[in-house]
Amino acid sequence: MTSTAAADLIFGLTRVVGLPALTEAAGAPLSAEDIAQIVTEADRFCTEVLMPGAQAADRAGAVYANGVVTTPYRETYAKWIEGGWQSLAAPAEHGGQGLPASLWTAMTELGMAADTSFMLGPLLTAGAIDCLTHHATPEQAARWLPRMVSGEWTGAMCLTEPHAGSDLGVLRTRAEPLGNGRYALTGQKIFITWGEHDCTENIVYLVLARLPDAPPGSKGISLFACTKVKEDGSRNAIRCGGIERKMGIHASPTCIMLFEGAEAEMVGEPHRGLPAMFAMMNNARLGVGTQGVAHGAAALRLAEAYAAQRIQGGRPIAEHPDVARMLMEMRSITLAARLLALETALCVDRHALLGDAAAQNRLALLTPILKAWCTDRGVETASTGIQVHGGMGFVEDAGAAQVLRDARIAPIYEGTNGIQAIDLLVRKVAKDGGAEMRALLAEVGRSPDARLRAAAEAFGAVTGRMLEVQGRDAEAAQSVAVAYLDAAGWLLGGWMLARAAAEDPSAHGATAEFYLRRLLPRAAARAAEIEGALAA
Amino acid sequence: MTSTAAADLIFGLTRVVGLPALTEAAGAPLSAEDIAQIVTEADRFCTEVLMPGAQAADRAGAVYANGVVTTPYRETYAKWIEGGWQSLAAPAEHGGQGLPASLWTAMTELGMAADTSFMLGPLLTAGAIDCLTHHATPEQAARWLPRMVSGEWTGAMCLTEPHAGSDLGVLRTRAEPLGNGRYALTGQKIFITWGEHDCTENIVYLVLARLPDAPPGSKGISLFACTKVKEDGSRNAIRCGGIERKMGIHASPTCIMLFEGAEAEMVGEPHRGLPAMFAMMNNARLGVGTQGVAHGAAALRLAEAYAAQRIQGGRPIAEHPDVARMLMEMRSITLAARLLALETALCVDRHALLGDAAAQNRLALLTPILKAWCTDRGVETASTGIQVHGGMGFVEDAGAAQVLRDARIAPIYEGTNGIQAIDLLVRKVAKDGGAEMRALLAEVGRSPDARLRAAAEAFGAVTGRMLEVQGRDAEAAQSVAVAYLDAAGWLLGGWMLARAAAEDPSAHGATAEFYLRRLLPRAAARAAEIEGALAA
Repeated sequence: MTSTAAADLIFGLTRVVGLPALTEAAGAPLSAEDIAQIVTEADRFCTEVLMPGAQAADRAGAVYANGVVTTPYRETYAKWIEGGWQSLAAPAEHGGQGLPASLWTAMTELGMAADTSFMLGPLLTAGAIDCLTHHATPEQAARWLPRMVSGEWTGAMCLTEPHAGSDLGVLRTRAEPLGNGRYALTGQKIFITWGEHDCTENIVYLVLARLPDAPPGSKGISLFACTKVKEDGSRNAIRCGGIERKMGIHASPTCIMLFEGAEAEMVGEPHRGLPAMFAMMNNARLGVGTQGVAHGAAALRLAEAYAAQRIQGGRPIAEHPDVARMLMEMRSITLAARLLALETALCVDRHALLGDAAAQNRLALLTPILKAWCTDRGVETASTGIQVHGGMGFVEDAGAAQVLRDARIAPIYEGTNGIQAIDLLVRKVAKDGGAEMRALLAEVGRSPDARLRAAAEAFGAVTGRMLEVQGRDAEAAQSVAVAYLDAAGWLLGGWMLARAAAEDPSAHGATAEFYLRRLLPRAAARAAEIEGALAA
Repeated sequence: MTSTAAADLIFGLTRVVGLPALTEAAGAPLSAEDIAQIVTEADRFCTEVLMPGAQAADRAGAVYANGVVTTPYRETYAKWIEGGWQSLAAPAEHGGQGLPASLWTAMTELGMAADTSFMLGPLLTAGAIDCLTHHATPEQAARWLPRMVSGEWTGAMCLTEPHAGSDLGVLRTRAEPLGNGRYALTGQKIFITWGEHDCTENIVYLVLARLPDAPPGSKGISLFACTKVKEDGSRNAIRCGGIERKMGIHASPTCIMLFEGAEAEMVGEPHRGLPAMFAMMNNARLGVGTQGVAHGAAALRLAEAYAAQRIQGGRPIAEHPDVARMLMEMRSITLAARLLALETALCVDRHALLGDAAAQNRLALLTPILKAWCTDRGVETASTGIQVHGGMGFVEDAGAAQVLRDARIAPIYEGTNGIQAIDLLVRKVAKDGGAEMRALLAEVGRSPDARLRAAAEAFGAVTGRMLEVQGRDAEAAQSVAVAYLDAAGWLLGGWMLARAAAEDPSAHGATAEFYLRRLLPRAAARAAEIEGALAA
């Protein structure tokens, strides 16, 4: 049986964002049936293989001892490889199936909803594959990518250092040339997701470091790749120094990685590591935004099941007006976020399959909104899910608490949501004088729903105000950037739901109507907050 | 050194809500200096005795084995008794200091902010003392209360059963008369905070149960008291069947309690147990609302310390515009909530010390708002505190994650926030046709701040709308009750801050202005949500 989430993903891909038409235009048609079959298979894998062990995995956690990390995932990961899921959207020339990024987004949502800690491994590997596909030489790619695409090796991204988080420009890891075209990396990286584990024989590390002649700051950072096990079969000088004790994602090892003269190769040009990493990060941010959707979906699944069977006052609590309200909030927010993630992923596909430059601009605009708005909503929805459970929500056995604990990291990593808001304001909206945002708002403004049209117009005015303030007082503008991004998210969520309702009024009309009546006003509320803050 | 929280509590008690004037009118004057001294001593105890062990206590947790519960608090609790803190606001006739409830509220905030798991024990004991003070016979009171007031025995409230949570009317625990004026209790109670522990020799249980001749439903519930150790020194037939594994408050044992023919006495009249318990619950809800304040205060303390020393982009992150915004949100919300808790607590004192019936009505109105709005804000502020920390916020060592994990229960227990919203709408506002709410809004409407006056007027209109809808479609009204309560909270928070700013513009003017500009619009946003939901 297909889950509600999977059914909605199929509906979204085929009837809202138009994946069949896009693939047909690109000459590699995927029918609605093809899409349904792939998503249904992904759903089955996630429901049957990942979901059953997720709670026990959280309880056991990843365990560190003497440089060795043990996870609860050895068998699960073997099934991941066996299913070939890592290859889904990977390039065909390296052994991938070359399917659209939007299908990988669907897989990401289903996997993250089933077991976030597990799915982080494949997500990071996908990011590393993406980075190497764009920046490695053909010779490098041939050595690493086939085994990453098969899932035989995983990938890990090594950026953060203790003193260099949001500000990567100050990182200190050194890369000394060894004379043979290779480099010795020395330094400490922290917060390395799946940096060490027991699921594969080898791990490919992508590491930001400085060459000896590097200029200071972000323009002196280069990108390197190295492997845990070297080509001659010996261990590289890379060691896990410990793992973090965290609020959630307990079974995903968050590692301190020590590079102690590790043998590495440069990837791409010297001093061009940060742009290479940022290009990759856009896709990673799409993945993290999708985690927000997944946490909403996981919370909703548990809350609906609990509310249907818990009787108080002579009827299931799902029928109590305030619990019904909470469930409708969870449903409408999760569907809105899901469709927004698919809309964003389709920009990746439109650019990749049709070379559509406009899609690239749209993607750049939507990415920070997706990342921040969906992950904030994931936390909010997970918390609402706990509330639906009453006292049981706080007890770990029910699973609802784990969803919130796992969800809480998503607004932080891959660039905090505050960083996303500044990215949206400065590097996206202000950069082109608001042109791409206005183009998007013009589309929303063509909605047949008057409330959406009015909200789009009001948000256009807010955008003008933000541009004006950003031009004369950047710090003032940045102090309301989060509110601005949030308003954009509420507006676009409503737009996606209105489109879904237009396609299938009987399935999604009530959900959209709930949102447009009760949640769309949050866009105006955020605008009022901005206006209040900027008032002289 | 006095903490910021303690300084603000002293300021609030002495200059905003007017405790010195009230105590003088009551003929038992407490000067501003007296109040400052008591709060400063409480602050010292919490900072020096409770706070240092809170993180280790969370990590160790309460441990259950064979009916025995071990906590990390044996030594800490001994210091609690030694300091005489339990007696602070307890009645003088039972050995208490008889100080105002508003001072106990200050102690509650400081203790909960220092170590929530610990402070829950004293808070539940205070609730039991309150209940017995009002409902026990003098003879019963003399046997139990002095040892509870000293802290030598703790109290536990036994209400919830597996199938009876928000709906206590269906509870099944039986009370069989033993013929000697005593009763044998048989049944299972769950979610019993500090139901079993190793800090005291004895525990007094207040238990809701049914007499054999009890009518069905909530009118057939009586209140009983029994002790873990009977007067002859033998163990009563009360057993802890296990403790819950929870998201937070790990060191507070949440017990399954089995009454297996436990010898008990009735407290109050037969079948009148629920009203007795609900009267006590109003005070307990004040205590839980204060927990929300405490979680905001704890989150703020950690976030301010981290943001001051964490350097990114060449300056402390506290100076980054969006981090500065988060800190201001945390400060203004926490201060607003703190003052609202004191305002509510002062109603308790006005009623108790002056016999002021109007204060009783005001207390009834404010209690659900305080409980729900402050605990929602506690969760929100704790989450913002994590965000200020970036990646470190998700790592347990930083402490910020524990604040959120501990805070998340407060919107659930002592009546979920959904129940509070219905209580506000149905049993408070609709009950008197909105009279008390209008009286409160008239006070807010006399504020010199035009934004507050406008917000009070708008909320008055929303109140009229809610009353109208409640009269003809109670389920529709209840589906927006949470939004209505939340709007009330944002309005009253602004009112408290405006009063603080008027008293001391240099200390609190900027905080109030931030709130009035940026957060007060949330009241209007909730009104828009209600309007949207109720639109035909």
